[in-house]
Amino acid sequence: MDFSVTILGTSSAVPNSQRNPSSQVVRYNSNYFLIDCGEGTQIQLRRNKINLSKINHIFISHLHGDHVYGLFGLLSTYSMLGREKDLNIYADAKLKDLIAYHNDFFNNKISYKLIFHALKEGDTEILFEDKLLSIKMFPLKHSIATHGFVFKEKEKQRNIKKYKIEEFNISVSQINEIKNGSDLISQEGKLVLNKELTTDPEPVRSFAYCSDTAYFPNVIDEIKNVDLLYHEATFMNKDIKRAYKTLHSTAEQAASIAEISEVKNLLLGHFSTRYNNIDPLLAEAKVKFENTEIAQEGKEYQIGLDF
Amino acid sequence: MDFSVTILGTSSAVPNSQRNPSSQVVRYNSNYFLIDCGEGTQIQLRRNKINLSKINHIFISHLHGDHVYGLFGLLSTYSMLGREKDLNIYADAKLKDLIAYHNDFFNNKISYKLIFHALKEGDTEILFEDKLLSIKMFPLKHSIATHGFVFKEKEKQRNIKKYKIEEFNISVSQINEIKNGSDLISQEGKLVLNKELTTDPEPVRSFAYCSDTAYFPNVIDEIKNVDLLYHEATFMNKDIKRAYKTLHSTAEQAASIAEISEVKNLLLGHFSTRYNNIDPLLAEAKVKFENTEIAQEGKEYQIGLDF
Repeated sequence: MDFSVTILGTSSAVPNSQRNPSSQVVRYNSNYFLIDCGEGTQIQLRRNKINLSKINHIFISHLHGDHVYGLFGLLSTYSMLGREKDLNIYADAKLKDLIAYHNDFFNNKISYKLIFHALKEGDTEILFEDKLLSIKMFPLKHSIATHGFVFKEKEKQRNIKKYKIEEFNISVSQINEIKNGSDLISQEGKLVLNKELTTDPEPVRSFAYCSDTAYFPNVIDEIKNVDLLYHEATFMNKDIKRAYKTLHSTAEQAASIAEISEVKNLLLGHFSTRYNNIDPLLAEAKVKFENTEIAQEGKEYQIGLDF
Repeated sequence: MDFSVTILGTSSAVPNSQRNPSSQVVRYNSNYFLIDCGEGTQIQLRRNKINLSKINHIFISHLHGDHVYGLFGLLSTYSMLGREKDLNIYADAKLKDLIAYHNDFFNNKISYKLIFHALKEGDTEILFEDKLLSIKMFPLKHSIATHGFVFKEKEKQRNIKKYKIEEFNISVSQINEIKNGSDLISQEGKLVLNKELTTDPEPVRSFAYCSDTAYFPNVIDEIKNVDLLYHEATFMNKDIKRAYKTLHSTAEQAASIAEISEVKNLLLGHFSTRYNNIDPLLAEAKVKFENTEIAQEGKEYQIGLDF
């Protein structure tokens, strides 16, 4: 199963010539999930050759413009392209009013059903779940209601050794039981232990998104051990007072969260426009957590692989 | 005086990976005028190194999303940057409500005075005027109220021959009269005709913007003889029925308007996403009007110079 995240925007509220506002796409096999939708997201999706129509779920962390302003264009484009599939939006309930106001204002004819999932401030809740993946929201600490999201694979089946199927003439229904951990009684009545028939399953992979947020240790339980953490890193240490005041994080604080949560890899984003060169932010983070990278717009990061 | 237009976006309603939604900046010396503000305009301005703070006037041709969606981000950025100068917006009156709704929704603190100039459907009117330049709106023909804009230099003063100033010992106050066409009575009482003292003034330059619009000959009187016309060219001839139905123009129709209006140069834009290659649109236009080019995003076109 392909499991990746493609970064579309890494600027904070004021975009510049190098960085777009917040947005990224998580891909799990053929499912595409959009997280946040800053201005220009639909253009960034096109540039990165991500088919707009494959996105059926949009998660909005909070209602600041730099995470939302791209939504109106995207929703309108879907209708112009004749989208028929349902579209799920997960966001603060107020966003529904703004979308309705826009649709009314621009007299938009909506070609698809928009299913709005209202996120309640402070809630921790599973938002999406299928056989393979779950997506959970959890609260962050910002100036308005803000949520992080963790994408986690379900526990996987054990891998059956192919030659054992032949050796014990195992039926299709038995295969599934064995993959789930059962032992086998062979046709000769002999007990064959599961560990003789199978190898360990592939490890479960996970990705977490924390933006925007102040340093907030409450997230640690939610993001513990994830393979990849995207955490905002708006400021350098020298601007920590500004981080405190605006409820954003420094790069070093993001790295502290990564360290305590024992994540495998950390991606930094949501950089203040005040820094022309963000290498110092990376350096400050690496003091606390070595496996850190600056999120690159347009790059697809495989979840479960080291940098 | 520098007089130019920089193209920021040339897509029609659905943007693609190559083209941004409608926007362009007219520069007249140190004054910058923004025309339309599709999604991503503030990012395009940054990419093209146009200082956001130099823009004091924004003209919105009509209230379709692809000409408006970038406005909310830009207005919000101005406040985040602490803009104090007045900002003038010229648009259909309804836009004022949408801006107010946004400001209220996002709890935006506005750091500057926004002066809203409501454009009345069907009106032809001077919107801006100073000693050197005038900007006039005129109606286009589209599915909702839409206006074109023509930027025109004022008539210029004649150029006085420097050696004549010395020869006739002309005073400062006389110089201005002579530049405005007066003859001179010399200190010896002799009549010196203006044409002996001066050379013809620099020609008056002008630029017109027509998007979005069906083929609409009513504009010809307004754009007659302009140096540069930007005209929408959404479709090829084979899609003329679609152009008719959606109240857009074909490239050839744009060229016909240019030909009849005896403009010097024509820039085509607002291309339908259906065409991967737009060279055929250029070819169809050139049949009617040779001095035609495809508008290039990021290119600054000097008004008054030939292609």
